[in-house]
Amino acid sequence: MAFEITNTFFDNLTSLIHNQDDKAISKLFADVHYADIAEVLDEVNFDEAIYIIKLLDSEKTSEILMELDEDIREKILNNLSAKEIAEEVEEMDSDDAADIIGELSEDRQERVINALDDDELAADIKELLSYDDETAGSLMAKELVKVYETWTVAGCMRRIRGQAKDVTRVHSIYVVDKEDKLVGRLSLKDLIIAKSDQKIAEIAKSKVDAVHVNMDDEEVAKIMAKYDLEAIPVVDDHNVLLGRITIDDIVDVLKEEAERDYQMAAGLTQDVDSDDSILQLTKARLPWLFLGLVGGIGAFLIMSVFEHSFKESAFVLFLFTPLVAAMAGNVGVQSSAIIVQGLANDDVKGSINSRLLKEMLLALLNGFILALFLMLFVWIYEGRIDLALAVSVSLIAVIVVAGLIGTFVPLFLHKRGIDPAIATGPFITTSNDIFGILIYFLIAKSILGI
Amino acid sequence: MAFEITNTFFDNLTSLIHNQDDKAISKLFADVHYADIAEVLDEVNFDEAIYIIKLLDSEKTSEILMELDEDIREKILNNLSAKEIAEEVEEMDSDDAADIIGELSEDRQERVINALDDDELAADIKELLSYDDETAGSLMAKELVKVYETWTVAGCMRRIRGQAKDVTRVHSIYVVDKEDKLVGRLSLKDLIIAKSDQKIAEIAKSKVDAVHVNMDDEEVAKIMAKYDLEAIPVVDDHNVLLGRITIDDIVDVLKEEAERDYQMAAGLTQDVDSDDSILQLTKARLPWLFLGLVGGIGAFLIMSVFEHSFKESAFVLFLFTPLVAAMAGNVGVQSSAIIVQGLANDDVKGSINSRLLKEMLLALLNGFILALFLMLFVWIYEGRIDLALAVSVSLIAVIVVAGLIGTFVPLFLHKRGIDPAIATGPFITTSNDIFGILIYFLIAKSILGI
Repeated sequence: MAFEITNTFFDNLTSLIHNQDDKAISKLFADVHYADIAEVLDEVNFDEAIYIIKLLDSEKTSEILMELDEDIREKILNNLSAKEIAEEVEEMDSDDAADIIGELSEDRQERVINALDDDELAADIKELLSYDDETAGSLMAKELVKVYETWTVAGCMRRIRGQAKDVTRVHSIYVVDKEDKLVGRLSLKDLIIAKSDQKIAEIAKSKVDAVHVNMDDEEVAKIMAKYDLEAIPVVDDHNVLLGRITIDDIVDVLKEEAERDYQMAAGLTQDVDSDDSILQLTKARLPWLFLGLVGGIGAFLIMSVFEHSFKESAFVLFLFTPLVAAMAGNVGVQSSAIIVQGLANDDVKGSINSRLLKEMLLALLNGFILALFLMLFVWIYEGRIDLALAVSVSLIAVIVVAGLIGTFVPLFLHKRGIDPAIATGPFITTSNDIFGILIYFLIAKSILGI
Repeated sequence: MAFEITNTFFDNLTSLIHNQDDKAISKLFADVHYADIAEVLDEVNFDEAIYIIKLLDSEKTSEILMELDEDIREKILNNLSAKEIAEEVEEMDSDDAADIIGELSEDRQERVINALDDDELAADIKELLSYDDETAGSLMAKELVKVYETWTVAGCMRRIRGQAKDVTRVHSIYVVDKEDKLVGRLSLKDLIIAKSDQKIAEIAKSKVDAVHVNMDDEEVAKIMAKYDLEAIPVVDDHNVLLGRITIDDIVDVLKEEAERDYQMAAGLTQDVDSDDSILQLTKARLPWLFLGLVGGIGAFLIMSVFEHSFKESAFVLFLFTPLVAAMAGNVGVQSSAIIVQGLANDDVKGSINSRLLKEMLLALLNGFILALFLMLFVWIYEGRIDLALAVSVSLIAVIVVAGLIGTFVPLFLHKRGIDPAIATGPFITTSNDIFGILIYFLIAKSILGI
């Protein structure tokens, strides 16, 4: 079923655009899914993309716009008039419409909303734009199927035939009382199976999960994933039904969250992808590299302090500093990643102290095994048991401290309400490099008695 | 709506179990969602968990079992007889049933399947177990709503009332011909809106996306996410309808994939979480740490070679080795993370050479800025411009090479059909440490003319 973009397809498309053969272009795209057309538009040059967008009808282009890379979409929207954008937006569900309009500058937002023929949609969009980013309100759509508890099944079916036309997917039918407060839900299946003279109140499930309009979007995603929900209604303080969130929006939230955590762990501050410009990529990468540089200078300063003590008597200690720094970094990243992931899954139970104790035992076990190996190597290679002991015992200490820092920092950040994901990656590696090297020299110094 | 497990709840539960007050326990759990009960069972001791499982009815416990941590579920299943497991399984959809049975030993699998009263379910489970892990077949359920193209809407509604009872969620109704080949689909909404004497063939959409039963599960997830599908039918070589995959299974695949990539980037080989035993955590962590140790010894050996040249004349070079190693590691992780994520999203276009060129320009830009800063520091601190130049110019070279390795390795692995995610984390850091230090000393040596 996968659509492959071939070179022939592109050559064909380019020559058709060149000849302005609109009929043939429309035919070329007739059976192509909008997600695939969006991929084509990501690839062609900008003028060609604009040409295609203006040519295809808005029922199709509205879907395509939603699938485009954000920066390409921005460029295209800048090339469309407020009226043209309004036409696209009228084909969209209210949540998508609000997302698109939200990307425009404030005065263009107003012009597009004023250009809408559909007053109800305009009001919905204004409402949706009023909710904060990353809340349930920013994710929800206004389209849903709503019935009153006093209706009969037959009456309900009649009304639903009307409402359902505007709703792409009917997951649940929400039952409200006369004040529009959410009191229950039922599925289309329940309705089909019921007798036509039954009252809705009789067949509706009264237990209905809902989220508050200001709930954090990642929290909503967690709830929907945990309870295997495909849609969830959104309510206000008074339990009045405002909209609903569907699982496809949650899939996007989960993907974005995972990508952001992954990027943070790799030391990328902004949401970048491999096709971004060198300048954008530099902005995302340089701050973390600079942090690494400062950390390296810190390590240099610490080592300078010990130059006098060790340069002649135990020079070899300096040659193991990259090893010590690497081990401290790796252990720190491992520990913090486990905690960060556990926190994301609400999986971290028990007190911080018991976590730290466990990490210490774990680090001792790992450290002991690794240190034994290193001790044998140094002993055989350098022929000095005192050096071998100094290097390997300090390695154990470094690993234990690195593990504790890697465990403590994300837990601490989480308690403070800061996203613990920033604790993995360069941040933890850099601080562990410095602490690791300091501990290493201090312990080696006391063992060697220098 | 969130259910909070309080200490009072636990104390209450423990004393009820102690008194064997079954009625009160059932009442306690009556309104609690199965996902929440699963969380309770993850927390209580094992005997208590078994007690609760045996007490609650199988309609509820079958759902609970699916939500438990895998290791706790395994222990519980080991404590249930084949007959008891069969009772649980009969309440499940075929995909969940096959997953649970698939976790048992081979001879227990057979005993449980033989203990099933429902022969159709037994046949379905046998079929599902025959598909390879991580394929569409292993994800799909046999339950779906299927109608023949020759039926009328009214006839169809009658039949659906029967079939739909077994199907938790009706996403699409699949239309087949007399040989059970998939020829179209329609939604419940289409059916409700249609006139009752219309033929199914008239109202069905003939364009229906389907995946082959042997397709890789991550590929299925990608397709469903890209095309915003909530369910997709699964077919065999002859387009015969075998089952369907729903979006909630895909949410799990996406989450697992993201977690695995994240763990690999952090240097954790096995799927572990923070509550696993110290031994399991050691198994996941030690191999990567050992790799780091070997890398550190490699760095030591390289530095030993340069000991003679630099110990007296430019000792300070040794003090910058942790900085060089850290920068090489950080740059490598950044570059590889961008490529790995791009590959996962099918976002990496163009040739390897153009990627490498871009990465080189990017690394040169970053490297130049960082090197300038380092040069000033060394010049001011050590008062020697030759040393400052040697350190900073080699830093640029190290950053460029690290960026190229970080870009090339995942692309190379991907071309070879190996998961590029293993290229991030300790693997790339370790190799970049060694290469970085080698390049650093070689370039410094030629600049200083020693």
